[in-house]
Amino acid sequence: MAFASSSTGHLPLPTPSTKRSLLAPCAAHRTPDAATVVELPHQKQPSNFTANLRTTLSNLLRLHLTPKPESSLENLAIALTADRRSPTESPKEDVSPLCSELHGSSDWSHLLNPLHRWLRREIVKYGEFSQAIYDAFDFNPFSEYCGSCLYNRRRLFDNLGLAKNGYNVTKYIYAMSHIELPRWLERSIRADTWSEDSNWMGYVAVSDDTESRRIGCRDIVVAWRGTIAPAEWFENLQGKLEPLGSDHGDVKVEHGFLSIYTSKSDATRYNKSSASEQVMEEIKHLVSFYRERGEQVSLTVTGHSLGGALALLNANEAASAIPDLPVRVVSFGAPRVGNIAFGEKLEEMKVKILRVVVKQDVVPKMPGIRFNEGIKKFENVTGTLDWVYTHFGLELELDVRSSPYLKRGLDVGGFHNLESYLHLVDGYLSSDTEFRLDARRDVALVNKASGILREELRIPPCWYQSANKGLVCNSYGRRVQPQRDPEDIPSPDRTGPMTCHN
Amino acid sequence: MAFASSSTGHLPLPTPSTKRSLLAPCAAHRTPDAATVVELPHQKQPSNFTANLRTTLSNLLRLHLTPKPESSLENLAIALTADRRSPTESPKEDVSPLCSELHGSSDWSHLLNPLHRWLRREIVKYGEFSQAIYDAFDFNPFSEYCGSCLYNRRRLFDNLGLAKNGYNVTKYIYAMSHIELPRWLERSIRADTWSEDSNWMGYVAVSDDTESRRIGCRDIVVAWRGTIAPAEWFENLQGKLEPLGSDHGDVKVEHGFLSIYTSKSDATRYNKSSASEQVMEEIKHLVSFYRERGEQVSLTVTGHSLGGALALLNANEAASAIPDLPVRVVSFGAPRVGNIAFGEKLEEMKVKILRVVVKQDVVPKMPGIRFNEGIKKFENVTGTLDWVYTHFGLELELDVRSSPYLKRGLDVGGFHNLESYLHLVDGYLSSDTEFRLDARRDVALVNKASGILREELRIPPCWYQSANKGLVCNSYGRRVQPQRDPEDIPSPDRTGPMTCHN
Repeated sequence: MAFASSSTGHLPLPTPSTKRSLLAPCAAHRTPDAATVVELPHQKQPSNFTANLRTTLSNLLRLHLTPKPESSLENLAIALTADRRSPTESPKEDVSPLCSELHGSSDWSHLLNPLHRWLRREIVKYGEFSQAIYDAFDFNPFSEYCGSCLYNRRRLFDNLGLAKNGYNVTKYIYAMSHIELPRWLERSIRADTWSEDSNWMGYVAVSDDTESRRIGCRDIVVAWRGTIAPAEWFENLQGKLEPLGSDHGDVKVEHGFLSIYTSKSDATRYNKSSASEQVMEEIKHLVSFYRERGEQVSLTVTGHSLGGALALLNANEAASAIPDLPVRVVSFGAPRVGNIAFGEKLEEMKVKILRVVVKQDVVPKMPGIRFNEGIKKFENVTGTLDWVYTHFGLELELDVRSSPYLKRGLDVGGFHNLESYLHLVDGYLSSDTEFRLDARRDVALVNKASGILREELRIPPCWYQSANKGLVCNSYGRRVQPQRDPEDIPSPDRTGPMTCHN
Repeated sequence: MAFASSSTGHLPLPTPSTKRSLLAPCAAHRTPDAATVVELPHQKQPSNFTANLRTTLSNLLRLHLTPKPESSLENLAIALTADRRSPTESPKEDVSPLCSELHGSSDWSHLLNPLHRWLRREIVKYGEFSQAIYDAFDFNPFSEYCGSCLYNRRRLFDNLGLAKNGYNVTKYIYAMSHIELPRWLERSIRADTWSEDSNWMGYVAVSDDTESRRIGCRDIVVAWRGTIAPAEWFENLQGKLEPLGSDHGDVKVEHGFLSIYTSKSDATRYNKSSASEQVMEEIKHLVSFYRERGEQVSLTVTGHSLGGALALLNANEAASAIPDLPVRVVSFGAPRVGNIAFGEKLEEMKVKILRVVVKQDVVPKMPGIRFNEGIKKFENVTGTLDWVYTHFGLELELDVRSSPYLKRGLDVGGFHNLESYLHLVDGYLSSDTEFRLDARRDVALVNKASGILREELRIPPCWYQSANKGLVCNSYGRRVQPQRDPEDIPSPDRTGPMTCHN
């Protein structure tokens, strides 16, 4: 499909600076004001540990050193004043003329640098679909439903303010793992829990009629959950590659990711079928349903961190199973997943992969660098693994230093946080321009689960929390764990295929 | 006044086991399951540090000895089931026949062991007045009003559910300190803060007509705020005693407490007069107002931790300044305040002091034991300070092991927490009986700011928190610090004397 001119302006010219990269050396890491945790000025204490960690990290991530001038506080102040009294929503434009390009048919070559506003909005949309899983996940170990979604699929987007995107959730996906993977599974401390083995791991959604018209096709989305303990978690990837399926002896992927994607057990309630079987059943069902109606159908698989890894496995399976289905992956801060043969297979099947990566984030450099939580340092194992685990697809590289809203210090968690990614995408124009000050996304969202926003913004760190940790007062005046609405209680019956509804 | 028999039963007989104690040796500390922080079972890791800290603490606090059997889980389960569907409020009974005794005229000798239910309810009432200051304190450093009360004085009790007690707040007290006392003052990070120097430090309230009739006198209450970092904070008491006033050369009190109570500066907005001057002006005003109406007036000063220390200084000043005013102190987990001469002076003036003390709490043993945060151990300095700093008055000693709801491990913060105190008072019958299972106070309150409740209760640790740390969505969909209602914004004008209103 050729470029169609839009009513509001011309399309950007292609530039060569988007890259099919392996490990990209990072340019600079500016200030000595390093802090891995959020500290207020009056609590701040210099520590040898922090200094050593910074040095180790800088060396490993090659964060040397041309200082970049800090955006002026005056600009920030101006932006702030404007920011609080301006709309957060971008205009809804008809992007169907670019349907194929936005889906990656030309490897986004004309749209990435500078970043076309239509693609930017699409990336943010998929990022919000990934973020939704964190926002609606029941992390409370005192809840009997810990590890499930707080809401049923019909209420998910409404409750999170995402109904604006014009999608309906058709199925929830649950996963388990036969391999012991610490801090992956969130579990209730209660004996009478909904599930001992499984976690809510993602969902399938489909664009409604209005959105489908706007984007030019019926878009099936699968969003996969990440993990909240990235550095510790990825430490446990021991670099064990496992053959993927019986037909592809040389295609190998990380066995931990594969375990989550494929594990099942008749002894469980939610994983009598694997995440792979659940999601593929729904995708096949939706594709045939809409194809029978004569519609053009596409699949977009998205996820952050671990979720980005699962997205690749899912995209690979879908492209193998459903001929001629356009399959796209939009991942955020995803680690490496498999070997070169895996990448070649994906390319062969024309799976389009857009990897959004913050260059200061360590997770996309794993496996390859391992974080040893016990002694709080990073070990470089690139020499043995780098050539084995490989990244594929196009990379959109973001830089935390581009945003005047973010702190300059080292913040491993903040760099990896999905809301930081969405903020940086929202402000991204091109690889050599400043953060756009007319970005509309609410900057406060960045601190939902991190403390990387500058203090001048007056947004508390990690503010996303429920009143009284969800406790409610019962009619006797006692604080108790709330009863869930019956329709929000997970049930294996509700995980089966749904009739589509648009 | 003689004992009057109540309609529901006889009064307890006096026993000698309530004591005017110095450092009381504690009996036992049962299990090896020590944890200074809240950990879930699957996160629990044994540590040498914890073990060493336990040993050090055990030795210093003399916590050896006879293991006490753990209350059975069956009993707990029964209590739990009943607990969630039973009233939390105690009956309101006419206690005026015991007005004088409840005020300590006979040193509570007939009411403490066993603890008379009327006295128990009065103690809980004053404890709730102290707790109110923690619950309504703005701890948010990103708020421009950090360090003030979230609500104006007319709304305080309503917003906290304490209107039931039948008191009206007449004045807020603000304090500053000329001595550098780390982690005492809560401060905003913002330049445009309401106050750089002062914190809300307490309030004066007075019983309304109905409550005054019920208790037999017009009760003026002063409640003083404690500190949330007890162990670190009290470490900073260097054992410097300072003469109290010009007339009493041998009466000496801790200079840190005295500094908070008496500091003032014309350069500040809220402490042009000291806390002492503010509170004494209001007390004198109220006493003369109600005495002119021919009413019997009494003063009760209460506080937890640091607040208990300030209560003693305040009681001393009030008793000195206002002849014939019955003055009572009900303190919770208060440290030692002054020397023996200070105690003798209080006794001479017939100030009645009821010290509620959890025997596992270290703060009442300070000064005398110092906590060294840097090397995480307690140093016993009793040899040099114990004879200098002295406790006065009657002690009601509580034992965390008496409650089947509380964990058995070491929890320095949990032992000192005011809600733990109120829970233990609520369940206290006598020094040699079990926790009463018909106690009505909501057990969940204990975990407001600690994690000392047993996990079986399914109450998350430290659950007292606001939704999204107080951020609200403005009309543009952006998260912002909320605007306070103008009437809740602290103003020096509003700290002046008020006309009484009942």
